[in-house]
Amino acid sequence: MTRSLRIAAAQLGPIARTETRAQVVERMTALMRAANARGAELVVYPELALTTFFPRWYIEDQTEVDAFFETEMPSDETAPLFRAAAELGVAFSFGYAELVREGEGRIRRFNTSVLVSSQGEILLKYRKIHLPGHRDHEAWRPFQHLEKRYFEVGDLGFPVADALGGRIGSAICNDRRWPETFRMLGLQNAELVLIGYNTPQHYPPAPEHDHLQDFHNHLCLQAGAYQNGTWVVGVAKAGLEEGCELIGGSCIIAPTGEIVARCLTRGDEVAVADCDLDRCREIQDNIFSFEKHRQPDQYGLLVKPGT
Amino acid sequence: MTRSLRIAAAQLGPIARTETRAQVVERMTALMRAANARGAELVVYPELALTTFFPRWYIEDQTEVDAFFETEMPSDETAPLFRAAAELGVAFSFGYAELVREGEGRIRRFNTSVLVSSQGEILLKYRKIHLPGHRDHEAWRPFQHLEKRYFEVGDLGFPVADALGGRIGSAICNDRRWPETFRMLGLQNAELVLIGYNTPQHYPPAPEHDHLQDFHNHLCLQAGAYQNGTWVVGVAKAGLEEGCELIGGSCIIAPTGEIVARCLTRGDEVAVADCDLDRCREIQDNIFSFEKHRQPDQYGLLVKPGT
Repeated sequence: MTRSLRIAAAQLGPIARTETRAQVVERMTALMRAANARGAELVVYPELALTTFFPRWYIEDQTEVDAFFETEMPSDETAPLFRAAAELGVAFSFGYAELVREGEGRIRRFNTSVLVSSQGEILLKYRKIHLPGHRDHEAWRPFQHLEKRYFEVGDLGFPVADALGGRIGSAICNDRRWPETFRMLGLQNAELVLIGYNTPQHYPPAPEHDHLQDFHNHLCLQAGAYQNGTWVVGVAKAGLEEGCELIGGSCIIAPTGEIVARCLTRGDEVAVADCDLDRCREIQDNIFSFEKHRQPDQYGLLVKPGT
Repeated sequence: MTRSLRIAAAQLGPIARTETRAQVVERMTALMRAANARGAELVVYPELALTTFFPRWYIEDQTEVDAFFETEMPSDETAPLFRAAAELGVAFSFGYAELVREGEGRIRRFNTSVLVSSQGEILLKYRKIHLPGHRDHEAWRPFQHLEKRYFEVGDLGFPVADALGGRIGSAICNDRRWPETFRMLGLQNAELVLIGYNTPQHYPPAPEHDHLQDFHNHLCLQAGAYQNGTWVVGVAKAGLEEGCELIGGSCIIAPTGEIVARCLTRGDEVAVADCDLDRCREIQDNIFSFEKHRQPDQYGLLVKPGT
């Protein structure tokens, strides 16, 4: 039995604030059909794939914020994507803003991603842990990055699922910059990590690094892949969205850290690669055999509160 | 007061088994003079810089092994390097095999590096924690990698020193592949990490990755620099040494992860760069502000014994 999985990174170009979920889902479905035509068995979409990247705005009215959140999955508007997956027999992964109503009127909000089987079963759910940006309105910025305001830190840890014949984990956007994320997944024997992102080209606190955004994106993804011997699929929402340019560079990376497929535009685009999950062992059994070479008793500071 | 330090990566070409320490120290001193002529204030040499890389041989006679170790530093043979440093007014860092005699005839052996002031003061000592390779003779290999046999795991943790106007840490060879190493130093506010290495071009357990050795070297060094906002100096022992080809690629890397200077040969060679330690803050205060963005309570698995 082969353990090779044909995967598509399904990059999305910009989504306007006025664009409806139904319109976005139509674009996503078109990408799914294009990927399936190339034999893809798994289609990976970006973070917060269903709407424009709303944390760029300071919005005082919580009702207006909540309009960007999903209260059920699938919903009427996302159902066509699930139906297409069932029709084509492909699994898929995508990010969305998740609103959870708990007892006594308590509401929780997360930046979430799910991996869904072709039959609509949720195989893996992850809620973003490394929320970037800031909590309060910072008027000096040309655009905001209010993820710390609109989302709670994820409460599901870094889960890894046995799915699609392999061990699959997820991370979301800023998570990928932190080697802790990849290591938490690697220590659970992940063979494939699915990552969506929305990354502005311009970083207001240190604009002298703007020209390095693509380099930093790939550097973190490639190091995470190699240092854990796992396949990595990084998928962007890209292009000029509501006046904010987002990087592209969606790619599929081998356990050696090599980029084996990538998108070349900043629009809707699919990149496809055959990912042989058995090749993880070349790295995981040797240079990065955790059992043989890690020294966890020397790493105390890594988990010290306040660091 | 400027916090810019002019640093030289002083790469060494191969060292034959028959070469004496005096001969090697002469080569190192010549590199120090060449670096100083370019204004270097700190000269960084490779791991185990004083002899050939002896863990490539299975040596049964412990006396023969111990001949590769230093019992004092400086010794008569290394004194000329210390004298040149004093004459030129440069600090330097290098690696050596360290033999420590403790009470009751107990002997301990480490793969060690020191940072030394121009006046001969040891500013920082580090003993390698991530020992690669294997413990027992493996006859199938074209050459051995017996660091786990000849050395103990370092017992000094990951120290960081206030020295030369900055915060300086060290790592040795295989340590650099592990993001834990850089993070342990980064959490102590390191601004400069000095790393020597001896890395064979051929990796017997997974020769299908031989062509990626240079890529993997730089990937780990660059990710470690960027993800901690620290300068990194990586220095090779390079070239065809006793039938074993070692990679070069010695380099100086900015806190952005960019390589700003590198060696082009696999012989004795110096690469020099001006390292403005204040530029660390562009990364450390923003995208990798640990205080704002790390989630140490989510990382328990990283320190779990047996992982």
